[in-house]
Amino acid sequence: MIADTPKTSYFAVIFTSVMTEDDYGYEDMANKLVELAKQQDGFLGVDSARSALGITVSYWRDLDAVKKWKENSDHKLAREKGREIWYKSFKTRIAKVESDYDFHKL
Amino acid sequence: MIADTPKTSYFAVIFTSVMTEDDYGYEDMANKLVELAKQQDGFLGVDSARSALGITVSYWRDLDAVKKWKENSDHKLAREKGREIWYKSFKTRIAKVESDYDFHKL
Repeated sequence: MIADTPKTSYFAVIFTSVMTEDDYGYEDMANKLVELAKQQDGFLGVDSARSALGITVSYWRDLDAVKKWKENSDHKLAREKGREIWYKSFKTRIAKVESDYDFHKL
Repeated sequence: MIADTPKTSYFAVIFTSVMTEDDYGYEDMANKLVELAKQQDGFLGVDSARSALGITVSYWRDLDAVKKWKENSDHKLAREKGREIWYKSFKTRIAKVESDYDFHKL
């Protein structure tokens, strides 16, 4: 359920957003986009949560994979619709994950 | 509403969690922890969202600030309670934010 990423280092794209009132077609597009991302070379995983704010963090092998995903034409179209319709504001941060650790209850 | 962080680079602590059924006292502790984090030297901002998964991303000036926050005794106590009671599993990732960009609808 939490993205099972490999040993560090790898890259994270942290996408934080506030939506408009108009969410028509959003969930469908978001699901399609995740399926599309999973097919990309260098994709490592993705986690999403939404309450007042939405946060999606996708994980990638290297900056080249991040760049190629940004240039993917279907992804570009989705981002255009996002700016036009669904998002009031968003922020995207590209970060290099340098260390990680986890916990699982027995 | 989305954390207004300064020019890159800075650090992100990406905390992704799955909760147990027992959320008694959790929200109160989470709110207190955010207030406490805000008082720390080098704290830059925090964003949170929760649906099936919880994602909290806090932003820090440098790794030293991240380390000091990890060592904060109140924060340590909260993490112990988290492992004992509230969290089924979690993953913490420390990442260096190398670039960012944002969008605001007019």
